[in-house]
Amino acid sequence: MKILVIGAAGMVGRKLTAALLKAGQVAGRDISALVLADIVSPEAPKAAIPIETYAVDLSTPAAAEKLIAGRPDLIFHLAAIVSGEAEADFEKGYRINLDGTRHLLEAIRLASRHGAYAPRLVSTSSIAVFGEPLPAEIPDEFPLTPLTSYGTQKAIGELLLADYSRRGFVDGVGIRLPTIVVRPGKPNKAASGFFSGIIREPLAGVEAVLPVDTSVRHWFASPRAAVSFLLHAAEMDTSGLGQRRSLTMPGLAATVGDEIEALRRIAGEKAVKLIRHEPDPVIAGIVAGWPQAFSAKRAESLGFVAESRFDDIIRAHIEDELGGQLG
Amino acid sequence: MKILVIGAAGMVGRKLTAALLKAGQVAGRDISALVLADIVSPEAPKAAIPIETYAVDLSTPAAAEKLIAGRPDLIFHLAAIVSGEAEADFEKGYRINLDGTRHLLEAIRLASRHGAYAPRLVSTSSIAVFGEPLPAEIPDEFPLTPLTSYGTQKAIGELLLADYSRRGFVDGVGIRLPTIVVRPGKPNKAASGFFSGIIREPLAGVEAVLPVDTSVRHWFASPRAAVSFLLHAAEMDTSGLGQRRSLTMPGLAATVGDEIEALRRIAGEKAVKLIRHEPDPVIAGIVAGWPQAFSAKRAESLGFVAESRFDDIIRAHIEDELGGQLG
Repeated sequence: MKILVIGAAGMVGRKLTAALLKAGQVAGRDISALVLADIVSPEAPKAAIPIETYAVDLSTPAAAEKLIAGRPDLIFHLAAIVSGEAEADFEKGYRINLDGTRHLLEAIRLASRHGAYAPRLVSTSSIAVFGEPLPAEIPDEFPLTPLTSYGTQKAIGELLLADYSRRGFVDGVGIRLPTIVVRPGKPNKAASGFFSGIIREPLAGVEAVLPVDTSVRHWFASPRAAVSFLLHAAEMDTSGLGQRRSLTMPGLAATVGDEIEALRRIAGEKAVKLIRHEPDPVIAGIVAGWPQAFSAKRAESLGFVAESRFDDIIRAHIEDELGGQLG
Repeated sequence: MKILVIGAAGMVGRKLTAALLKAGQVAGRDISALVLADIVSPEAPKAAIPIETYAVDLSTPAAAEKLIAGRPDLIFHLAAIVSGEAEADFEKGYRINLDGTRHLLEAIRLASRHGAYAPRLVSTSSIAVFGEPLPAEIPDEFPLTPLTSYGTQKAIGELLLADYSRRGFVDGVGIRLPTIVVRPGKPNKAASGFFSGIIREPLAGVEAVLPVDTSVRHWFASPRAAVSFLLHAAEMDTSGLGQRRSLTMPGLAATVGDEIEALRRIAGEKAVKLIRHEPDPVIAGIVAGWPQAFSAKRAESLGFVAESRFDDIIRAHIEDELGGQLG
């Protein structure tokens, strides 16, 4: 089978590509070729199968057409302008997150004119499709009331995925990812950055700033769990989805205090002492509107599994990013 | 104030135009000009104020730009490809119902570059944004899970209206209309046509076919109520809407049996005898998936009012379409 990954240069895209090459097959079928696309050309890992890489601007219909021309059997669509940027640049957010997704769906639909074609499409959505007022635990069947342009674009993507799937143009699965921690790499300016930073930096012996109170509660999964969600969505029997093609992924509801206690258990008091509490009312205000926990029963019943203890999220980081060793 | 009505040639558009001209003002401000647009040129009623009419294809950005060039203070967007046609012609439905709405919102946003501009936009949505499984009474806060392309396009329109309003580009109100009865004019092929037909035809002394059981329950309002919703949405204080800009309109939950009993009370047994029960399993199947009743508490608390008895819906038809007289 031929697989297309759109958004392959990002953190999750790179980990997914590595996992696909390691597995060598999806749902029992050998992977014969990989096509990796992103706004910048993704690095092609060394592999025994052919890998094509493309730098494409998804906001043009031609880009999607080019990527679909090879009629991939399985498509992962991970590309997006992130929340902060979609809010700052209204036009760019709609161009990539809405038009880009629609062009992809249209290219798939139009490809079926040259012979039966309805590939599995695994598309990432976000818990940003939900907005206040939110219950403490958000159930599977909850209205989409996004309070950002990014959340709006993701919610529209979910509606399109459902309609194109209902019409038989594509076999779509939308997965709403939790906040991914521990993100590897450098600290960034995302409002959510500290959730990873207060684990990643101390494990590397570096000071981390905590801008919110330890009572702040949020919804997490590891990069490893995110990749497992994508692979399971690619392999699952979609007949159990019915018309509701997008699923809130399982995750772990934890407070910042829970994070810190897990860090203490794994890396000791020395690591915890590297967290400096420096309240930032702007970040605290943003985070206050975020969901705290979900009941992801549908996804769980369909076989998606996430970590159940924050310790496991930290251990996954140590194994996958630090060679299994504490510094 | 200058008012633009898009979809002015349709049944609701014509009644709205007449109501605006009769009132002469909206929210205490005199109407200085009317711009009427539709896919075919709307008829310009005789009036003391200037009326422009346009035949436009909303699926092009240029059409929206042209309509917004005069910077109307109030815009009614009623134009749509209806459910059956949007399902039969996938591309046309998305072109008009999604692209058309987006072009309109974009034209409004871009007009603000030439001076502050954020007009009130009253846009019609539909109860087709909801799909099975549905509770017997659908609450205000219920997930949008459309099961048709039309419903998908309307749900996307609601999300866009909310985001453009949140960003301050427009002051939007989306109203989800009940099924409108009694529709004047000839019988049509819409699956919902019989709900009007079994009242309209007997009142005119003509036989009507009833394709479903008398126990079928659905959600109704008169054309007169629909116009009152539009006018109230144009005048209301939108600060009470918060971020949730679309509202399920109040209506009347009634069975086909309730309709027939109301007809009997108003026009007697002779009229009822003109209804011929001829079961059609295809229509019965379509109608079985439709919502039966809503709790429209939000709209009611914001001042929207519908009929509370089916007799009133029939009387509105007799007064507005039959000159107040039974034939």
